[in-house]
Amino acid sequence: MEKTWTDLWLQYGAKADVGNAVFCENYYLDGFQEDNKVIANALNEFKRGISGMLNLKPKPGSARLGEKGLLITKVDSSIVVSEGFSLRVDAKRIHLEASEEEGVLYGVFYLLRLIAMEKTLKGLDVKEKPDIKNRMLNHWDNMDGSIERGYSGQSFFFKDNDIIISERTVDYARFIASIGINGVVINNVNVKDEATYLITPTYFHVVKKLMDIFSGYGIKLFLSLNYAAPIELGGPDSADPVDERVVSWWRDRFMQVYKELPGLGGFLIKADSEGRPGPFTYGRTQADGANMLAKLLEPHGGLLIWRCFVYNCTQDWRDRITDRAKAGYDNFIKSDGDYHNNVILQIKNGPMDFQIREPVSPLLGGLKKTNQMLEVQIAQEYTGQQIDVCYLIPMFKEVLDFRVGGVDNESIFDVVKDNGVAAVTNTGDDKNWTGNDLAAANLYGFGRLVWSVSLSAEEIAEEWVRLSLSNDIEVVEAVKGILLSSRETYEKYTCPLGIGWMVTPHYHYGPSVDGYEYSRWGTYHRADINGIGVDRTDKGTGYTKQYQEPNASIYNSIETCPEELLLFFHYVPYRYVLKSGKSLIQHIYDSHFEGVLEVEEMIKVWERIEGKLPARVNLVVKERLGWQLANAREWCDQVNSYFYRKSGILDERGREIY
Amino acid sequence: MEKTWTDLWLQYGAKADVGNAVFCENYYLDGFQEDNKVIANALNEFKRGISGMLNLKPKPGSARLGEKGLLITKVDSSIVVSEGFSLRVDAKRIHLEASEEEGVLYGVFYLLRLIAMEKTLKGLDVKEKPDIKNRMLNHWDNMDGSIERGYSGQSFFFKDNDIIISERTVDYARFIASIGINGVVINNVNVKDEATYLITPTYFHVVKKLMDIFSGYGIKLFLSLNYAAPIELGGPDSADPVDERVVSWWRDRFMQVYKELPGLGGFLIKADSEGRPGPFTYGRTQADGANMLAKLLEPHGGLLIWRCFVYNCTQDWRDRITDRAKAGYDNFIKSDGDYHNNVILQIKNGPMDFQIREPVSPLLGGLKKTNQMLEVQIAQEYTGQQIDVCYLIPMFKEVLDFRVGGVDNESIFDVVKDNGVAAVTNTGDDKNWTGNDLAAANLYGFGRLVWSVSLSAEEIAEEWVRLSLSNDIEVVEAVKGILLSSRETYEKYTCPLGIGWMVTPHYHYGPSVDGYEYSRWGTYHRADINGIGVDRTDKGTGYTKQYQEPNASIYNSIETCPEELLLFFHYVPYRYVLKSGKSLIQHIYDSHFEGVLEVEEMIKVWERIEGKLPARVNLVVKERLGWQLANAREWCDQVNSYFYRKSGILDERGREIY
Repeated sequence: MEKTWTDLWLQYGAKADVGNAVFCENYYLDGFQEDNKVIANALNEFKRGISGMLNLKPKPGSARLGEKGLLITKVDSSIVVSEGFSLRVDAKRIHLEASEEEGVLYGVFYLLRLIAMEKTLKGLDVKEKPDIKNRMLNHWDNMDGSIERGYSGQSFFFKDNDIIISERTVDYARFIASIGINGVVINNVNVKDEATYLITPTYFHVVKKLMDIFSGYGIKLFLSLNYAAPIELGGPDSADPVDERVVSWWRDRFMQVYKELPGLGGFLIKADSEGRPGPFTYGRTQADGANMLAKLLEPHGGLLIWRCFVYNCTQDWRDRITDRAKAGYDNFIKSDGDYHNNVILQIKNGPMDFQIREPVSPLLGGLKKTNQMLEVQIAQEYTGQQIDVCYLIPMFKEVLDFRVGGVDNESIFDVVKDNGVAAVTNTGDDKNWTGNDLAAANLYGFGRLVWSVSLSAEEIAEEWVRLSLSNDIEVVEAVKGILLSSRETYEKYTCPLGIGWMVTPHYHYGPSVDGYEYSRWGTYHRADINGIGVDRTDKGTGYTKQYQEPNASIYNSIETCPEELLLFFHYVPYRYVLKSGKSLIQHIYDSHFEGVLEVEEMIKVWERIEGKLPARVNLVVKERLGWQLANAREWCDQVNSYFYRKSGILDERGREIY
Repeated sequence: MEKTWTDLWLQYGAKADVGNAVFCENYYLDGFQEDNKVIANALNEFKRGISGMLNLKPKPGSARLGEKGLLITKVDSSIVVSEGFSLRVDAKRIHLEASEEEGVLYGVFYLLRLIAMEKTLKGLDVKEKPDIKNRMLNHWDNMDGSIERGYSGQSFFFKDNDIIISERTVDYARFIASIGINGVVINNVNVKDEATYLITPTYFHVVKKLMDIFSGYGIKLFLSLNYAAPIELGGPDSADPVDERVVSWWRDRFMQVYKELPGLGGFLIKADSEGRPGPFTYGRTQADGANMLAKLLEPHGGLLIWRCFVYNCTQDWRDRITDRAKAGYDNFIKSDGDYHNNVILQIKNGPMDFQIREPVSPLLGGLKKTNQMLEVQIAQEYTGQQIDVCYLIPMFKEVLDFRVGGVDNESIFDVVKDNGVAAVTNTGDDKNWTGNDLAAANLYGFGRLVWSVSLSAEEIAEEWVRLSLSNDIEVVEAVKGILLSSRETYEKYTCPLGIGWMVTPHYHYGPSVDGYEYSRWGTYHRADINGIGVDRTDKGTGYTKQYQEPNASIYNSIETCPEELLLFFHYVPYRYVLKSGKSLIQHIYDSHFEGVLEVEEMIKVWERIEGKLPARVNLVVKERLGWQLANAREWCDQVNSYFYRKSGILDERGREIY
């Protein structure tokens, strides 16, 4: 029976042999045990890949020095660190060295990647280790099978309040292990209803099965936790973190959980956010809530990942003092240093919510004595919902490279590397996993980037195209071109200069310029007859003061503020002249028209290569490109008409505005 | 066990005897049969009412002239027409005469109403007959129990794809019979899924039971029909009205339906509308579709009610030529005279969709040779959703009084009286039936008005208050005051001068000025920096030309157009001076602030009488008045801020605008 899902970037179709086959007929294990499940999975993957790509059946050899092949050697962790590997190819052998089984697995995937890309192994001499400790995916999957902000079908983890385990689960583990992911949260951070019971005997046996599959690929399983679980699961009628009954309830619960699920990575929690319960309900601090749980997890080796997405979501649009952008910092900065050592605060890249352009959150690196993890979103909630192409790796690189200022002036990468980066993921049970085949580049790219942050967005895109579509140079260049320009194209036809939102409420796809303007969500653009933008300077909401210098001053002045973020930080008159020499309003008109033209161009580029692509991929992507063009036109026309009707200023070039 | 629903306007609590009791101890039947179920229901109602209100047990007497009592006499229809009755009180007797059983029922309810209002029967001498033939309620209830645009709980007809029959069903029949309703469509016009099967043996037995209850109260049952039923019920793979297989399928179906459900009133159908299938799918006209069904219904005495809510709901907001307001007329006027004689076209009061202020549809009375029925909506979809008080009877009277112009210059009442008026109803399984107790005044008022169109909105309001709340004069005057001003208050704080919409998309409650401005629904206000309104004159979309003279000219000129409809017909600059001497923009500001003040005043009035009201009513209404005030403030602030930000023109009185 044909699989109902694709192989993503582990296609293992026939490849040209560029002299690599000779190294792949035998493999030797030295110091590692063949029956260790990670090693077994690594060797199976090697055999499967080589068999598919080079039509060979690698066999276990011996350690005899005379034979060519892959020699896998266990070395001391002083030579190769945890999860790392070294790969060196001499005349006869591939030397793969690691101190842990996971290193072997990653090394094998590295090798298979080179072979799939038809790169020669000759002369290979690399030593790799992950740049970031916890490389995580967060699934927002609900137990009824729906996915919050999912654009690729239903959950492949849950259906009808049960956990699904199938061949697809194993493939999923293989795919994400191949890009270096080592942690997965399987359930939605909004833990409600049945999902609250994931930490009870109802689900232990099946969570255990899932955990065993994952651990065979070096992946730790995490669960999202309901802060109100004591109440909802029939414990004390409180979730107050200083209530001894509550503490005792959690102690017992974790004891049972870790007895049944030894090796569970820990828990992710969204508390006091968008209607979720939390310590604020009881007049306690976020640190009170987090530490109570963390201390109880410590004996079991569990991590507590605490999300910082805490803000007032019943704001009054009339209020120009309260600023949602300030909320994360305000809620967490005071307790810097108060968190237990197994707490990690998980902070979204921007202060708002995964818009196409935001400044980096000042909380990241603003905290000095607290474990911090970066959260990004590859589920394209606000960035085209896997209909529109939007390759996000350039954005993630910008974030990691951002320097927080202050005395140390660390990069975000420095801030988070010892803790981790998590991506809200974009997968579902669609055949191609990600709705749009091109959206898989974000999943692939996220894994690759957090393994190796020095990879360029272009290098990653090239890898993905070669592994997923074709090594044909025309295809590689065309698709890379589409991917690399896609984020800026999307930005051009949507909301200008960092202002964000302007999306259809609730759905978050398609334009609605005033859709959130008079809402309770704290997401305003403040456009009027004269201009647009939110004054977040020291004369406005004061948000700029949350940054360390020189960033605070840079953002505070309209002269020095990076123009792509101009409207995020400043209220700007339509006739204000940008560095390009264009007025703001003309920039809005021009960029929107350009965005549409760029999508048209994207389609032309795609049409040039469509004959070289698998029919299924072409069908899916081309249909979506058509939808994207319609979306781009709608955005362009609505935004331009909105601002024309509001400003009364004509487009200098006389194009049609309605 | 206490009933879980209220008695609406049939409370039958103890009343002061103003000399009526003496007539109510005996009743006599002359010519009517006591075992006829309508007569039995009428007599039971009489006994129940008299027992509750006057603490008497009326007994069947004889025709002996010596006794005082109620004498019910059957007379010839040349003396009292179908459904009518005459009531005359002399020194000894109430003489109730009717030619049909239904007349007796209506006469009894008339008597009970007077007694409930503590009015004397002395000297009574009236002859009543309904002014309008079919007086119908349309339920938009779905078989899963939900109600489309329902604001009073779930359906009391359907639950989990079954029909509910209970004491509540009987009470419902009593209540609506008491106000003269003689036809009910029980299922949503959007017929989908299980509701398609209502015309199959699956449901005959239970529909029959319901029909029997209704017919005991003079009410005909109708069903909404799925035009695609042949396809969905396994018939021919087509619904083409000229396809002989389709005709034959329907013929058989109706044969079976009327064999099992003799006396079924007929069918209501929404075809080619908002995604519903219809004859347009097959390139046929609406008349082709309607006539095919109507001819097949004729032998069974069934009516076919065909809705005219046909328009393009995938319009392009950029397009200023297409005008949704024109669609009904354009789609139906050409086939005037082509409809079979048992077809009635059911036409919404306005050309758009039940907004707080619309002109009367030019299709009503524009058609000269076609049976026409008026459709109004008492479900407050766009008029406050039974949170906000909005007494709609003044609006319905305006519509019925409207003169269509042309040679005959008939009123809408003249146009529809021989066919009917239908209201999309506002009931659900909430305890008080209508969410807000005050919303029941619309249900009561609709029935009373279409029975007797010369009743004033005030008379009807007074009846309702006395019957439902209290005969206390302070209560009567206070609640009447609230009801009678409520429509204009609602209009003041929502969308100005007939422009409509500006509501939250999909939900239709609360403001979103641009919510439908860039949508596919054909519902635009076209506000820009200079002004607002849709040019529907002969220089614009040409909609005004659909009216007969003098209406066409009156609406076409900004000078003569009634100002409450100004923005429906004209694009008007903000600085245009209205007849009040105020500029348009100042009128917008003023009316919105006034609307809020009026709701505050409404609450004060309510608080003055709350001690005289049942606790339950006070609780429900007062809570909703609070919500209404919040809603009014939100509308006021959003609309005023929107227009201030767009026009840049300050409020002359310097009130706060955001």
